[in-house]
Amino acid sequence: MSEKLGILAIGHGSKLPYNKGIVESVANNIAKKHTDVVVKVGFMNMNEPTIEDALASFAGTGVTIIAAVPVFLASGVHITQDIPKILGFKDGSEKTTIKLDGKDITIVYGKPLGGDELISDLVFKRAQEAL
Amino acid sequence: MSEKLGILAIGHGSKLPYNKGIVESVANNIAKKHTDVVVKVGFMNMNEPTIEDALASFAGTGVTIIAAVPVFLASGVHITQDIPKILGFKDGSEKTTIKLDGKDITIVYGKPLGGDELISDLVFKRAQEAL
Repeated sequence: MSEKLGILAIGHGSKLPYNKGIVESVANNIAKKHTDVVVKVGFMNMNEPTIEDALASFAGTGVTIIAAVPVFLASGVHITQDIPKILGFKDGSEKTTIKLDGKDITIVYGKPLGGDELISDLVFKRAQEAL
Repeated sequence: MSEKLGILAIGHGSKLPYNKGIVESVANNIAKKHTDVVVKVGFMNMNEPTIEDALASFAGTGVTIIAAVPVFLASGVHITQDIPKILGFKDGSEKTTIKLDGKDITIVYGKPLGGDELISDLVFKRAQEAL
């Protein structure tokens, strides 16, 4: 059976609208470009849906695996401890399963965006735009 | 006279090493790819060099304009208030001049990385890598 991928784009959450706006825009862009993928957003704190609610909302979509990806630039305590705890990872694992529609669905954990060359290109583009 | 561009990549700063590592890696990538550009890093807090020290370190490099670009995903109070204040922008302006080597050098302000499609592509790539 081929897998049907779900992506959970995880935001930090903020009292200001900017973080939520960016995570939603990322999710919309991915969904438009990859129509075979089910994309949801969830926030660690201060915004809704929560990560737990977002995971539950994959019910009925037919996904067979979910990649939870933090829309964060850098690693840190949220990435290494807080979010894994919410996702239900045990003992430093980056994988777990949840029940959705009576089936065991695997959740895997993506790395934060980090020092990828795409980020460097984007910083250079922002510099050019400012001139 | 053609301009010689300086880019100041501004990081939030952190007690953990991740933020500093990413901002430095971004600066190194840009400097390698664009050898005609002088790239420096500066941190808003908790790491060194400070933004002020980083600006001063463009002395002697011959830059004629500096683009200060926050290596931040989302806008927020740091972007709209704290960093502009450190850079010396007045009254909501996103431009100022500093004296370097006895000359007036313009500083302009780049936007944070935001919901650019490059970010969406990178989140999708992180999901694929996790499978």
